[in-house]
Amino acid sequence: MSVSIFDSFLTTPEMIAVFDDTAVVQAMFRFEEALARAQAAEGIIPDSAARAIASVCNAQLYDIPALVHASRRAGSLAIPLVKELTKTVALFNQESASHVHWGSTSQDVIDTGMVLVTREALSLLDQGLQTLTDNLLRLAAQHLTTPILARTLMQPAQVTSFGFKLAGWAAPLLRARLQLRQAAQRALQLQLGGAVGTLAVMGAKGPLVAQRMADDLDLSVADAAWHTQRDEWVRLGLEVAVLSGSLGKIATDLSLLAQGEIAELAEPSGNGRGGSSAMPHKRNPVSAMIALAAATRTPQNAAALLAGMGQQHERGLGNWQAELAEWPGLFLSAHGALSALNEAVAGLQVDAARMLRNIDALQGLVFAEAASIYLAGAIGRPQAHGLMEQLTQRAVADGRQLAEVVLEAVKADERLRDQLDPEVLSALFDPVAATAPAEALARRQLQGLRAAMDALQAQAVFA
Amino acid sequence: MSVSIFDSFLTTPEMIAVFDDTAVVQAMFRFEEALARAQAAEGIIPDSAARAIASVCNAQLYDIPALVHASRRAGSLAIPLVKELTKTVALFNQESASHVHWGSTSQDVIDTGMVLVTREALSLLDQGLQTLTDNLLRLAAQHLTTPILARTLMQPAQVTSFGFKLAGWAAPLLRARLQLRQAAQRALQLQLGGAVGTLAVMGAKGPLVAQRMADDLDLSVADAAWHTQRDEWVRLGLEVAVLSGSLGKIATDLSLLAQGEIAELAEPSGNGRGGSSAMPHKRNPVSAMIALAAATRTPQNAAALLAGMGQQHERGLGNWQAELAEWPGLFLSAHGALSALNEAVAGLQVDAARMLRNIDALQGLVFAEAASIYLAGAIGRPQAHGLMEQLTQRAVADGRQLAEVVLEAVKADERLRDQLDPEVLSALFDPVAATAPAEALARRQLQGLRAAMDALQAQAVFA
Amino acid sequence: MSVSIFDSFLTTPEMIAVFDDTAVVQAMFRFEEALARAQAAEGIIPDSAARAIASVCNAQLYDIPALVHASRRAGSLAIPLVKELTKTVALFNQESASHVHWGSTSQDVIDTGMVLVTREALSLLDQGLQTLTDNLLRLAAQHLTTPILARTLMQPAQVTSFGFKLAGWAAPLLRARLQLRQAAQRALQLQLGGAVGTLAVMGAKGPLVAQRMADDLDLSVADAAWHTQRDEWVRLGLEVAVLSGSLGKIATDLSLLAQGEIAELAEPSGNGRGGSSAMPHKRNPVSAMIALAAATRTPQNAAALLAGMGQQHERGLGNWQAELAEWPGLFLSAHGALSALNEAVAGLQVDAARMLRNIDALQGLVFAEAASIYLAGAIGRPQAHGLMEQLTQRAVADGRQLAEVVLEAVKADERLRDQLDPEVLSALFDPVAATAPAEALARRQLQGLRAAMDALQAQAVFA
Amino acid sequence: MSVSIFDSFLTTPEMIAVFDDTAVVQAMFRFEEALARAQAAEGIIPDSAARAIASVCNAQLYDIPALVHASRRAGSLAIPLVKELTKTVALFNQESASHVHWGSTSQDVIDTGMVLVTREALSLLDQGLQTLTDNLLRLAAQHLTTPILARTLMQPAQVTSFGFKLAGWAAPLLRARLQLRQAAQRALQLQLGGAVGTLAVMGAKGPLVAQRMADDLDLSVADAAWHTQRDEWVRLGLEVAVLSGSLGKIATDLSLLAQGEIAELAEPSGNGRGGSSAMPHKRNPVSAMIALAAATRTPQNAAALLAGMGQQHERGLGNWQAELAEWPGLFLSAHGALSALNEAVAGLQVDAARMLRNIDALQGLVFAEAASIYLAGAIGRPQAHGLMEQLTQRAVADGRQLAEVVLEAVKADERLRDQLDPEVLSALFDPVAATAPAEALARRQLQGLRAAMDALQAQAVFA
Repeated sequence: MSVSIFDSFLTTPEMIAVFDDTAVVQAMFRFEEALARAQAAEGIIPDSAARAIASVCNAQLYDIPALVHASRRAGSLAIPLVKELTKTVALFNQESASHVHWGSTSQDVIDTGMVLVTREALSLLDQGLQTLTDNLLRLAAQHLTTPILARTLMQPAQVTSFGFKLAGWAAPLLRARLQLRQAAQRALQLQLGGAVGTLAVMGAKGPLVAQRMADDLDLSVADAAWHTQRDEWVRLGLEVAVLSGSLGKIATDLSLLAQGEIAELAEPSGNGRGGSSAMPHKRNPVSAMIALAAATRTPQNAAALLAGMGQQHERGLGNWQAELAEWPGLFLSAHGALSALNEAVAGLQVDAARMLRNIDALQGLVFAEAASIYLAGAIGRPQAHGLMEQLTQRAVADGRQLAEVVLEAVKADERLRDQLDPEVLSALFDPVAATAPAEALARRQLQGLRAAMDALQAQAVFA
Repeated sequence: MSVSIFDSFLTTPEMIAVFDDTAVVQAMFRFEEALARAQAAEGIIPDSAARAIASVCNAQLYDIPALVHASRRAGSLAIPLVKELTKTVALFNQESASHVHWGSTSQDVIDTGMVLVTREALSLLDQGLQTLTDNLLRLAAQHLTTPILARTLMQPAQVTSFGFKLAGWAAPLLRARLQLRQAAQRALQLQLGGAVGTLAVMGAKGPLVAQRMADDLDLSVADAAWHTQRDEWVRLGLEVAVLSGSLGKIATDLSLLAQGEIAELAEPSGNGRGGSSAMPHKRNPVSAMIALAAATRTPQNAAALLAGMGQQHERGLGNWQAELAEWPGLFLSAHGALSALNEAVAGLQVDAARMLRNIDALQGLVFAEAASIYLAGAIGRPQAHGLMEQLTQRAVADGRQLAEVVLEAVKADERLRDQLDPEVLSALFDPVAATAPAEALARRQLQGLRAAMDALQAQAVFA
Repeated sequence: MSVSIFDSFLTTPEMIAVFDDTAVVQAMFRFEEALARAQAAEGIIPDSAARAIASVCNAQLYDIPALVHASRRAGSLAIPLVKELTKTVALFNQESASHVHWGSTSQDVIDTGMVLVTREALSLLDQGLQTLTDNLLRLAAQHLTTPILARTLMQPAQVTSFGFKLAGWAAPLLRARLQLRQAAQRALQLQLGGAVGTLAVMGAKGPLVAQRMADDLDLSVADAAWHTQRDEWVRLGLEVAVLSGSLGKIATDLSLLAQGEIAELAEPSGNGRGGSSAMPHKRNPVSAMIALAAATRTPQNAAALLAGMGQQHERGLGNWQAELAEWPGLFLSAHGALSALNEAVAGLQVDAARMLRNIDALQGLVFAEAASIYLAGAIGRPQAHGLMEQLTQRAVADGRQLAEVVLEAVKADERLRDQLDPEVLSALFDPVAATAPAEALARRQLQGLRAAMDALQAQAVFA
Repeated sequence: MSVSIFDSFLTTPEMIAVFDDTAVVQAMFRFEEALARAQAAEGIIPDSAARAIASVCNAQLYDIPALVHASRRAGSLAIPLVKELTKTVALFNQESASHVHWGSTSQDVIDTGMVLVTREALSLLDQGLQTLTDNLLRLAAQHLTTPILARTLMQPAQVTSFGFKLAGWAAPLLRARLQLRQAAQRALQLQLGGAVGTLAVMGAKGPLVAQRMADDLDLSVADAAWHTQRDEWVRLGLEVAVLSGSLGKIATDLSLLAQGEIAELAEPSGNGRGGSSAMPHKRNPVSAMIALAAATRTPQNAAALLAGMGQQHERGLGNWQAELAEWPGLFLSAHGALSALNEAVAGLQVDAARMLRNIDALQGLVFAEAASIYLAGAIGRPQAHGLMEQLTQRAVADGRQLAEVVLEAVKADERLRDQLDPEVLSALFDPVAATAPAEALARRQLQGLRAAMDALQAQAVFA
């Protein structure tokens, strides 16, 4: 597959190779070869025909641009492909030529071809996910007690642990990896139905041929041809879309944290990465950019798959073709995003000092709730809340640290002074201490995630 | 929930009731009550406060339109709700009022409220799916040997069994039911994180409170608050979208088969159903219409969920709110489609005679492939294919049945006459005989589907 | 129209009222009344019938929930409405009843009804746009020389004028207003085609009736019924989507500038606006939130309109119904966003001092390009670029202002010292001076925008 | 541009060539050349530099795959392109190299490059639309009195004129052509803003340079850089989506009318067009298929453009890149659909006899309304309606022509017999007579469409 010039830099050469014209055609030949072999084994066609067919099921032998060109008139890539395959077989063996593609239909070979290349695509995603999850979990373990502002509705809220935040990024990726595998298990099925899904030409041997082909291609057998029942296939595509959504969430946070005015994280630089021609000081977050672009486009690819589901009768008109054309985009975007974030995370620059400074710059306001709770022990919640509101406003107005203002107020009020311990109160304004609840949650979560990851790792798939 | 005038007739009163304003508010109160009880059990708030709170967690006590109105200024429905709840508790018990919503955040109560009503919505879908699948399987069993044209690319192709076609409609519904249940199991989780997902206010007791609440509400506990990690929730929404896609496939076929010129199926009529004011003879396929409308809209709801996934930091700005607002639409559409098709299928008018007539009208052309294969046994495939092409053209040109033309040609050709049995040849043009391969596949498939259905039925869920 | 509980706070009561059930039904009655009057004027029905019909074309007289309920069975709201209208006319005058809805079809009355309420919706948008544009232009004029960081790829880039930035927000709103009006002029057309668009029942008088109705309702007449040719109508919907996109752009910038760490802008506060129950210091940007939610959802509504365009033959099945149901959402979102931003902009808190501080915090790096150009005059561009890169790195490493570092370097280098004027060099690091190019562009642009606005204002539309 | 193997057959080689990598790069070089020339003319850079730059602004001189490869690291295609251009200029003239891309930014050159290639794309659409509209109008004129079933909600409704139906297909294409031109006029603008849209580097000469460049490239000048204000550009893309929607409407009708059981229209056949390998009798409607695929995918491309509008500050992160990547797809789909339909319409096989037979097969039911109106003159509408309902049911039950049943009933009823003329009654069941109202409307409409087309033709655009 080749992609447009502005698609290229949003994906990877590896994923482009998976959906490359030659790769798709080769996968279609794999189908034809497996079909011939299975039919020979079942005595439907002569062994010699199966051998003759198999010997030329090699994409290198064909003029692929010519096939593509002919597909437009024919309305299907399979038609010229089968024609050329038949011709080529006939060059060697006229009789065998009539056994090519026997009892099968265009959609059988195209769908199965897409299944085969999609398995490769999933393998790339699985690997990329392993690396990204692994790196995020490692980083999370390092930063369990690193304080960082938690932000809600794009406003600083309270203090959390950076490790907890990272665990939050990693967890959906593990879920994505698991769900992709499960969806793949259901969706990576042989397509074999013949003209209208009944395998009529092969008679009673149809299901046996299907089983042999599935074994040969390491696919599962559907309980019926899925020519116009695309649900499992669409579910697989939607899983990829969910993955891009979760990667987009990471990219959103990354891009926000990398803003010059926040600067808590930075993507790795150097070697022409994210430089700006006009502004020497700039370092553009190009990994986040790629993942954000994927997240912007992918919901639409997903919608297109869903929109194509209402396929007419036994084989669809227009909707199947739309689905086929939309399919690679999901994987190209997802792998582009995944690889970009892998690059970003592998060289991520974490500025823990800046995280602290950003907390400090908020004058302790993010600890107001904790202080309010402590005060409530003495004077009840309503009064505590009201008092803290006042003190907060004072701190803001005077540009002072809230801790000071509160301690001052406590000192000035006999009732408070008697009941509250200034040291405890001060400690409430300590960012590192404030990470404790998040740290505890993160420790437990990381343990679970590591175990889940090991379990995933133990199972080889897409091999 | 109320819906717009042109939404109303695309959904059902049952599903509207699920997402009704009062129902959502009541579900939010369920959360507040469960929170208070759990915190009392853990000693975080006094028992008396929990009792006081629980006693007024009743949507009937509140002015819901006023809550909704206030939500706009506040930017969240939870803020006025908590305020009113607090005020109401205070009417009875000033002290208890300060324990309302303790340690929780707006999104905790709203997300959990949505989870609770969504469980009801899923229950409606599950029931509707049971009925529809059951009826389709029963109908399929009745029509295993009913011949019907199989159509590909919107052209008559060959003959299949109507029962096989019906099994093809039913299979994805069983898969949808299973996948919805599995997605629900993962997604129906308590939301409890406090302001920034760390449960900081409850300290070490946070997870214990969460567990108690989850038990109380019969939800599972997430491994971390999912305020901005929406993947499992989105997956559940996408499953609903896949269901609407599969229902749309049925509706597409139904609407095509109900066309006046094809007329193999008709939706039930009578009682003002699908009548036309201007044209007394018309019977509009209103069930298909509703399901097609759902299939047109749903991919976009799904895209909106995916588009909302890039939620910022610890709680999102705009995207979470968009997701909330899009969510009910998925269920409203799906249940509208499901109920409409249930109505259609329950009273479906199957015109098997017309199916036969439509086959006959094609002059036997749909049997050309079978004949070609038979001829190939005598003269090889290439010649057989060429000959059949000729004979087909002759049949079309002369407006004759292909069977006659072929028999004539065989009689006229010594070589063919010697090798071919006219009776066998004639039988190839028999529609009922032609259903045999599809019938065989359908028998096997139905067995599997029945078993799967029984298995699903055995497990009570969403109870 | 009523909307779901989580839709309510994303829109406005005014726009909800426009698409309210009663309002839509009343608009449909307006059609029936106009039809009867026009037919009477053309002698197709008796004057007395027209009077009888007109006298009961009043939504207040009907049980609207019952109409809605009946619409589901009928597959159309028009069918029960016409039936009830006919019954009501018959109460007074049996003979007149048979003239109700004469020669018209369900879609005529529903489409025209939607056109009429949509005109109201457009009027609200037009007014909202006037206010927002006016306020933005006023603010822009005040801030022509206010320096603010320009940011590209979410990184500080250079200095611009805040007034220029505001003009950039306003310009698309003026274009939206103009394009909405033009699209409305084309799309606000009477729908009148009768059963299949041929006006067959009215014979040669059909076009005359249409012209009279259009005059009565102040709509234009289409050159043919647009039952299944929805292009102009869809274009109008897409214009609303573009508007929400442009509002989303403003909201994006606003939310980014309102981040606590940047804090250059803040939405107005007070009166429960955007407060946080748990965190007294927080002020959530709820206006931006509403506009961002609209921008997240609207592309999908637009896609649904486009997806519904392939309407079958003379009147569509499912797609028209989907379009009808999606239509109000576009306007509800857009008006929600517009009103929210109007509120935000009317009380916008601009912290020009903070804008300056944020520039200063970047140590003058944003002026590197300007300095590089000045140096290039002396030593050529390549050397200048290289030197500045070095000095920039030094400034970053040492945490110093780039201006100092550069001046030092110039002083230390004889060749530079001779050719460069330190005062000129220093001035390059002056933020206010740096706004000059943007200011000049903004002045010119504002003049044009003001003129365009006055021109728009002069034309009364949607009155 | 190259496209994926399953995109290829849904578009055209001509449109692929427009967005080809080399074409895009060449358009970017056109920008750099025009920039240099304009800056030389304004005295910003030396004439010799402009000449040196212009002499190597030729895509043939560069290794385009290498540029594309480098774009991923850089995050932009412009960065390696400018680097290579600079290097190449330097080979000849070191001094001139420093004037390359002066004062411009990556997005300036990429956006303007896309504008230039988009103009070519629009020219292809404009030409394709001319041919298609012309052929449809010609066909419409031939078939003004050809009766065809009008179908509503996918049911036969009444009789219309095939010419009227064709005029209905043509009219939106004329509107699309006009609106595309108008949107193009607004959107085909030079992009020139420099790093942050202020043209700061060029000082007061910025606008003069922009004007010169625009003149050179035959583009208009925006009132401000549109780096992150994409509204006019998006509107242009949406116009293309509306076009695909209108083409999809034609394809829907075509595919429905070409169904074997209806067979009123057929796409041209022969030369491998739409053949089926397995079923010799099949002729697949491949043109409709291509246009339907476009209509399925395009709403999503449109949504992606809208979703990308919220671009941050002065230049966006991810969203601009997403828009760039989505852009070509809109044109590839639209031109694929347009060319396919041009092929279909140019060789369209119209079976007017079959149209008549299909009307006849409905036993005159489609004339029931006309008959009802005639009867109403005698017995009032309510009774007429009731009677026709009865007679219709009788005709259906007995499989007889409604005309006969009605005449019989009239004969048998004294009151009817006296008031009704059997000849008039019989004539109401004549299909050709029934086209009269549609014919009259079509004549008028065609006149208007022809005039509009001539007006469009008179203006040369996209030349």
